Amino acid sequence: MLYEINEKAIRLEREGKKIIRLNLGDPDLATPTEIVEAAYAAMKAGKTKYASAYGEEKLRQKLAKIHGVKTENVVITPGSKWGIFATLYLMMKGGGNIIVPTPYWTAYELMAKSLGAQTKLLKTEMEDGWKIDLTKLEAMIDKDTKIIILNNPNNPTSKVIDPKTLDGIVDIANKKKVTILSDEVYGPISFVKTKSILEYDGHGTHILSNGFSKMFTMTGWRVGYIIGNKQLIDNITRLNQITINNVPVFIQEAALKGLEMQKSLTTCIKKEYKERAKMACKTLAEAGFSFTEPEAPFYVFPKRKGLDSEKFTLDLLDNGVAVAPGTSFGDYREHFRISLTAPRNEIEAALGKIGEAIK
Amino acid sequence: MLYEINEKAIRLEREGKKIIRLNLGDPDLATPTEIVEAAYAAMKAGKTKYASAYGEEKLRQKLAKIHGVKTENVVITPGSKWGIFATLYLMMKGGGNIIVPTPYWTAYELMAKSLGAQTKLLKTEMEDGWKIDLTKLEAMIDKDTKIIILNNPNNPTSKVIDPKTLDGIVDIANKKKVTILSDEVYGPISFVKTKSILEYDGHGTHILSNGFSKMFTMTGWRVGYIIGNKQLIDNITRLNQITINNVPVFIQEAALKGLEMQKSLTTCIKKEYKERAKMACKTLAEAGFSFTEPEAPFYVFPKRKGLDSEKFTLDLLDNGVAVAPGTSFGDYREHFRISLTAPRNEIEAALGKIGEAIK
Repeated sequence: MLYEINEKAIRLEREGKKIIRLNLGDPDLATPTEIVEAAYAAMKAGKTKYASAYGEEKLRQKLAKIHGVKTENVVITPGSKWGIFATLYLMMKGGGNIIVPTPYWTAYELMAKSLGAQTKLLKTEMEDGWKIDLTKLEAMIDKDTKIIILNNPNNPTSKVIDPKTLDGIVDIANKKKVTILSDEVYGPISFVKTKSILEYDGHGTHILSNGFSKMFTMTGWRVGYIIGNKQLIDNITRLNQITINNVPVFIQEAALKGLEMQKSLTTCIKKEYKERAKMACKTLAEAGFSFTEPEAPFYVFPKRKGLDSEKFTLDLLDNGVAVAPGTSFGDYREHFRISLTAPRNEIEAALGKIGEAIK
Repeated sequence: MLYEINEKAIRLEREGKKIIRLNLGDPDLATPTEIVEAAYAAMKAGKTKYASAYGEEKLRQKLAKIHGVKTENVVITPGSKWGIFATLYLMMKGGGNIIVPTPYWTAYELMAKSLGAQTKLLKTEMEDGWKIDLTKLEAMIDKDTKIIILNNPNNPTSKVIDPKTLDGIVDIANKKKVTILSDEVYGPISFVKTKSILEYDGHGTHILSNGFSKMFTMTGWRVGYIIGNKQLIDNITRLNQITINNVPVFIQEAALKGLEMQKSLTTCIKKEYKERAKMACKTLAEAGFSFTEPEAPFYVFPKRKGLDSEKFTLDLLDNGVAVAPGTSFGDYREHFRISLTAPRNEIEAALGKIGEAIK
């Protein structure tokens, strides 16, 4: 229902209604001027032509250096979403299943469904601090399991997988010869240390997905990357050649500019979102919601006993606030997701309406 | 081999070699300043956020008006290539075959292959003026045929399908209930009148693919569109939501700017390419090649009895000229494709080397 809500919010706005948009992970902060200017300079320099389906060498080299891999292990994608889809498209060809802990980013299951792959959902609960149960995970893996998708930090809970649990997941995956696809798009801006899948992976089995949308406020630019073994990268590139061809070079130059400024940009983002999270948590607690405190931008995933989050979300949208129902993230009817991606006064106003709505 | 040659050309250039690039349909002319400025203005105005997977309403409306359809029949795609892939992905799910007249754009068959669909190639010959044989076409259609892909004007021959033949193809498709996917990316800049598939289609069966790459020199920007019935457009949008998400809004604004200037831009492009084609034809004829005269930008597809075009192309690349072997477009070993997408003096120099190479 996530996309329906978004299209409805867009429609309501076109009709002139004011909607406070807390339904997407799309930051209100503008893309930094330096990044816009880098794109413009590249356009003016004629970097508007067909380009390599691998991505620009300079950007790949920079990312390789950051992650301690070789350039041949990096491919640039039009958003991390495309990177994940392309990986699943290639890896799930012969059928099989994918294990996804929930709550999860809606797109994983929709992708799997579209590709004819089966998704096995491994439920985690707020009451357990969203911890993945290793015994259950191991039991869930069967001979057709090809991939475990981790989202670390998680959307919608903003929870980071603790290192010990991650160690355990990797051990199980290695033992069972299952690939981990680790979506770490919130990693570079998380509030706590987040262990990357690449810290484990000497042998090139596991895969990192990442993007520039969240860390540099570049959501609509569509640029991300996959890090994996050379064969996977070559295969994604071949798929790029017959689908998206290449990410515009001027957009890759903009992303490169962002990487040069990474430290200062991410510091600002973390600071702002920490404060927003603090504010939201306070109000939500007062209104009687329960939740875990965000360890990363952008989300809070509150729960209220007996809530029908779909009805709640639709009513709230008619009342000028867009959030996402818990059912968009798995079997979480009593939860909903708030994206703290609006100015503080708007978040405050929205939280006020949310509080009223459950009275 | 088309993509391998391109990646090799990029590699040689990185090594400092000067390559005259006549291997891609990537115009040397710069993207018009007005289009670059429109993109920049949109970026600065904050149009850098997630957006509708259908594409921007304004751009869809404009295209709907141009093509005489409803807005709901238009979806914006990151390049026409993605539009074609998405269409095939959705339509070929249950298996089946696709009929493609040859010579053909390499990507069609690679897409089909990637999707597990069968391609049935309908050969046309230079000696017959590249005419599609209607009897052969009808005989080729079987119960599993779902799509006929037309490329009108054609890449690599730059030949336009004559209206009578097109009438015949549409009649057969309608009778046999097969969908035509008409890739008309060279249509708006063709030298002769080119009949669009939309001129036939009152009932929403057939599909138009188009893009801004060729007509506005926006190849690397990745923006195109599909026109089809509402159900197809909705389905492509749902696929967009889980793959590419959206075309950057600032790129869509740039494309819209192009449409506002369409007449003057396409007039200039046509004029320039007509002159290049004339020049190339003269030199190629003198060197003893046979070919049909281009009716559209950007290609000439000359033939020489006994030529091994793959060897010829690789040798030529080492000698500083990139062209594409005929085998990349079907069973055309004696042909190769020249893209007239370089300044005239470079085309002249390249033609000189081509002439020498066959001595």
